[in-house]
Formats: sequence, structure tokens, C-alpha cells
Amino acid sequence: MSDPPTDTIRLSGGYLDEPIMPIRALSASFERAARRPGAWGRPPVDGDVALREWFARAIGGVAHDEVLITNGGQSALSIAIRTLTSPGQPILIESPGYLAAISIARTHGLQIVPVPVDEHGLRTDLLDDALLRTGARVVVVQPLFANPTGTTLSAARRAELFDALERHSAFAIEDDVARHLSIDGPTPPTLMSEDKSGNIIHICSLTKGITPGMRVGALCAHGPVYLRLRAAKTLDDLCVAGPVQAAALDFLTSTAYPRHLRTIARELGRRRDTLIRELAARLPNTQPVCIPRGGMHLWTRLPAGADPDAVGARALAAGVLVSSGVPWYPAEPDGPHLRLSYGCSDIEHITEGVRRLASVV
Amino acid sequence: MSDPPTDTIRLSGGYLDEPIMPIRALSASFERAARRPGAWGRPPVDGDVALREWFARAIGGVAHDEVLITNGGQSALSIAIRTLTSPGQPILIESPGYLAAISIARTHGLQIVPVPVDEHGLRTDLLDDALLRTGARVVVVQPLFANPTGTTLSAARRAELFDALERHSAFAIEDDVARHLSIDGPTPPTLMSEDKSGNIIHICSLTKGITPGMRVGALCAHGPVYLRLRAAKTLDDLCVAGPVQAAALDFLTSTAYPRHLRTIARELGRRRDTLIRELAARLPNTQPVCIPRGGMHLWTRLPAGADPDAVGARALAAGVLVSSGVPWYPAEPDGPHLRLSYGCSDIEHITEGVRRLASVV
Repeated sequence: MSDPPTDTIRLSGGYLDEPIMPIRALSASFERAARRPGAWGRPPVDGDVALREWFARAIGGVAHDEVLITNGGQSALSIAIRTLTSPGQPILIESPGYLAAISIARTHGLQIVPVPVDEHGLRTDLLDDALLRTGARVVVVQPLFANPTGTTLSAARRAELFDALERHSAFAIEDDVARHLSIDGPTPPTLMSEDKSGNIIHICSLTKGITPGMRVGALCAHGPVYLRLRAAKTLDDLCVAGPVQAAALDFLTSTAYPRHLRTIARELGRRRDTLIRELAARLPNTQPVCIPRGGMHLWTRLPAGADPDAVGARALAAGVLVSSGVPWYPAEPDGPHLRLSYGCSDIEHITEGVRRLASVV
Repeated sequence: MSDPPTDTIRLSGGYLDEPIMPIRALSASFERAARRPGAWGRPPVDGDVALREWFARAIGGVAHDEVLITNGGQSALSIAIRTLTSPGQPILIESPGYLAAISIARTHGLQIVPVPVDEHGLRTDLLDDALLRTGARVVVVQPLFANPTGTTLSAARRAELFDALERHSAFAIEDDVARHLSIDGPTPPTLMSEDKSGNIIHICSLTKGITPGMRVGALCAHGPVYLRLRAAKTLDDLCVAGPVQAAALDFLTSTAYPRHLRTIARELGRRRDTLIRELAARLPNTQPVCIPRGGMHLWTRLPAGADPDAVGARALAAGVLVSSGVPWYPAEPDGPHLRLSYGCSDIEHITEGVRRLASVV
């Protein structure tokens, strides 16, 4: 967790770099929000009603009073996992899957059951068996621009996921924090909006796609599950600061928001394409597992026999930060991989970063 | 948790009302913070270094790298309790004690061991026995302007607390969130600043004494305990938004901060004195357990045989919100009490609130 030297090139990171954050608009939103009458009082535990309404419309399939405003997506994920499970129980997590989900589940004392991911996302053909065999009642899934694999769950697999959840009365925690990071479009709708059986818990966030300075997320569920999540959130941190919620709403309802989405699509597209092109040129023996249609991560297979941890350490010594694939597996890796991020560096740095990486692979 | 009608007078609430919040200064701090270069990047997990240094100086007995910036005091308390205990273990909590501490401990599956409080704070003469009998290794204590009782731990009892912790190798979680709410002064130093054995976990917050719009707190501990708290915080919510931390530091280092503390002392003093005078005049059969030297709550004993829940319900029907004493006890109440708050209403409303309360007691 310690920071690398400042001249290190970052090809690992979950946040946009400042040049493609909408900083001027965010500052203006903060200034307006801080001056709004009533901004400084205690906000409701659930969150500001207008902000909840905005999220409900954006997500689909959920009413505003089923939307809980959280301190970013991490808080939402932690609350969801801890609320829906008890220590000792099994939980299904994508393999490779989101590091924070794996860490939260481990710390909560859960038995992690890995479900493989391929280039079309979660292998939903294996869900029935995993749910039946383990008795798990919760699946954590990133159906859109997954971290680390960049995959998007295919339409056929979405249907298979819904079927499996319904058959086993299981919940899926839909971790949808990368939605703002669409490059190629059109983006598939949320699972929440297509769910008919009430089995989806939805998580989204402004942190990944807009700025880590706006730690605002939403955690959505139907009926009694919503009330349990709300109770857990109350004990965790009570509420999200009013001025921050007001600033988020101000930004999301301004013209700066759709403009930012267009900037992101264009810039991330250039960066992704640069990364893929440079890898093909300089590291032809590596292989992207899929070409992500959004998000900020490229999951790259190293030559057979390579040690991703050692490659990561050598790369850092050569001045480029990459993420070894190893910790992204809840159990055994299915091969040597790196996660290469293209959201946090511009194309010049990506080009130079791949050059440095090539010198050590 | 649902809001009472808007014409209800609030004699229950943990936050200042807006007229005595330093709103203009806070808005200015937010505006400056949002424009600061680098404000929108990902802040360190531990928090902004300059803000940690400010807290370390204010708290005493702790280095800046032992200070973790949290999303308010509630988050700090939740992390501390969950990190220092495992489900099924005992934990010592003041009786009556802070409602959120009781709720967090219950939800975490702990066995709550109540330790009585009198007008001088925690009955530290009972600590040895409670620690020995139960094997508990954690005590939660509010040594300053406790919520709900308003008590401050006496000097003799502080020494007794330190002795007991050392003898039993136990930790005390010092919940010090009311420090800004001093009325009579001088305020005793933190336990952390006088601790010699490393057994204090310190929590403070800007939320209670400044504004709930600034959900910034600090959680402090020495050595390996700090690292465990930090790991738990990382999984809970990763970090506190950068602009919010910058705004907090801007406010705390401005002249508005000491001015606010003087305003608070004067205003809370007038309100407290009004509440006590009106109770003596209109409800002579009630009895404040202690005259708080700070904070915003008066713990008031009702006539023998009164039912605090019923009084609370009748009071609400008569247009005044008060808090029944019952939920503030982790086990059996030692008598019928109300918690009457004077921080969230001006003196006219306090006067009218007591009149309404008198009509139903």
C-alpha cells in the first residue's frame, strides 16, 4: 500500500488521473453545495431524497426508497457482504475477481468458493453446481467492465445467472461501479433493471468514473433486505455528509456530467488502444484475455511459466507499476497474468510504461 | 428513526442546530478546499498528513502516524469495536452508555457486560471485578461529557481506570467525540495523552462539536493495533474524500475555529442553564443526575414508578421530542430516566419544550 517513487509510471490503479477528471465542474458543484440552505444539518441515514431519485432512475428496476447512499462503492460492498452472510458461510466470487470483495469475504470469515471467469465473464454454466454443492446463497459479480478482467457478462449468461439465482433462492451482489467508464457503447442495462425475482443487490459509485474525491455510492435492494442493509449502514457510519451528497447531485444534473462521460469514452478508448498496440508490438508473447469495451483494466496473460509476482517486482524496479495477477484469485490462479490499467496514465506514459515492462518480461 | 412533525420541539438530538454551527466559515473552507491542487486525487488510506498532524497535536500522547482519519466518529467506533473483539467475546460498556456502542456490540455478537455509571462517570471501582469475572479485554468509555449522562470521569477514577487496564492487559476505547462542547472549562486532557502503557484507543470527531456536514473523525492507537484498525478501515470504506479532509483542516487552522469554540461554550451554557432552571420550576419531581460541564445532554431522573417510554410517547404527542432512558442501558435500567438534549434547540424552544413535557409527566 506504500506509494512508489514519483517518477514511476502507473499501469496499475483504480482511479482516473486528474487530467481527465472534471475538476473545474466538481469544484463549482462543491461551492454551490456548501452554500445551499440546510446543507450542514444532519442528512437522513438513507441519503438525500433527490440524490436517491437520481440513482433510482439511472439504475432502473428500483424505487428511490430502495436506494441507500453510501460512502463510496467500497462501503456498499462491505455492508452488502457482511449483511448477507455470517462468518463460516460460503460465498461465490469470480476467479479472478475483485480484490476488495475477496479481502472483505476473507476478513468476515467466509468460505470463498471461486467460480471461473472467461472472456465472456462469469462462467454461469458452473453456477448451479457451485450453489448446489456448497449451499451458498450469495454470489458477487461484476457484470460490466470487471476488475481485473475487463469482461462484460454476455446476454446469454445474464439469463443463466437469473435462472440460477431463482432456482437456488440466492442473491447476486451486482458490483456495477465501472458503468461510467464505457468506451465503445452501447452499455448493457443493469442486472437490477432486468431482475424479476428480487434477487439482485445493486452497487454503484461515483468514485471510479468521476473522482475519488466524491466518495458517494449507492446500495440498492428490495424489501426486507434493504432494511437490513440500512441498519448495518447506520452502525457503520450513520450517513454521508450532506454537502458531499449535494455536490454529487449538483454535478450529476449539470451539463458537465454528460460531457465528462464523452471525454472519458474518448480518452479511455485512446489509452486502451495504445496499450493494446504497444503490447502487441513490444510484448508479442503476452495475450490480452479480452478487449474490454469499457473500464480501465486489461487482463494480460504472460508466457507459460512466468511468475507474475516476480515480473511485478522487476517492473517496479524498472520504473513501472503493474499489478500481479496472483492476488486477484480467491484460490489457485489459472495461469500467469498481469492487470494493466490504462485509466490512470496518459498515452505517452502508457507507451513508455510498456517499453519499461518489456525490458523485464 | 423516522422524523417527528416539523413543529415538534427537539429536546433530543446529538448535533448542534444550524444557528450555532459556523456555516459561513465552513462554506468558505469547502470552497477553498475544492480548488486546492491535488484535492481530487485518491487520498492516502490513513488520511491527509497535515490533518493527522493536527489531530495528533490536539489529542496528545500520539504521533501523527498513529492517527487514522475516519468518516466521522461512528465509523471509528464501529471499526474499533469490531477490530478489537470477536463475536461471542465479552465487552465492558458503561450503563447507561452510548447507544451506538451498545448497538454495534450487539450486532457484532458480543456479550455486553454493563459497568454502572454514577455522577462521576464510570464506576472504576467495579472494573477489576468485571474484567476478572468475564475475561473481557475491552472497555468502551466516554470520559468527557458522556452521552447520555453528561458525566466527566473524575481524576481519581482516571487513575483507577489506567491501573485496571494495565493489570488486566485490557484496552479502553476512549470515545472523546464531545471535546469541542466544553462549557465551563478547563477541560481535562485526553486519556490518550496521560496513558503510559499503550492501552488506550482514542476516538474523536468534528461531527458533534462543529457540524454533521463534516463527517471527519480520527481513530488513534499505538503499534500493531493501529495497523489492524487501518486494515479494517481499508476494507470498510478505503478513505475519506480528499476535499472533505482539506476543508476540515482549513477550518481547524482558521480563526473561525477558536471563535466557534467560544460561541459554543457561551450558547450551550445558556441553554443548559435554561433547561435546568425550567425543569426545577416546572418539573420539581425530576432530578438531574449531574450538572454537565459540557456536552449537550442532561440525564434526568423521573419520579419513582414512571415509565420513560410512555413519557417519551406522551411528550411526542404533546409536541416535544425527548429520549427515553431505557435504550441507553445495555441491560436493566437502574431507574426511570430521560435524556434531555440542549444542543439542538434555542432557549425559547427549550423553555416551551419543558412546558410541554411538564404537561405529560
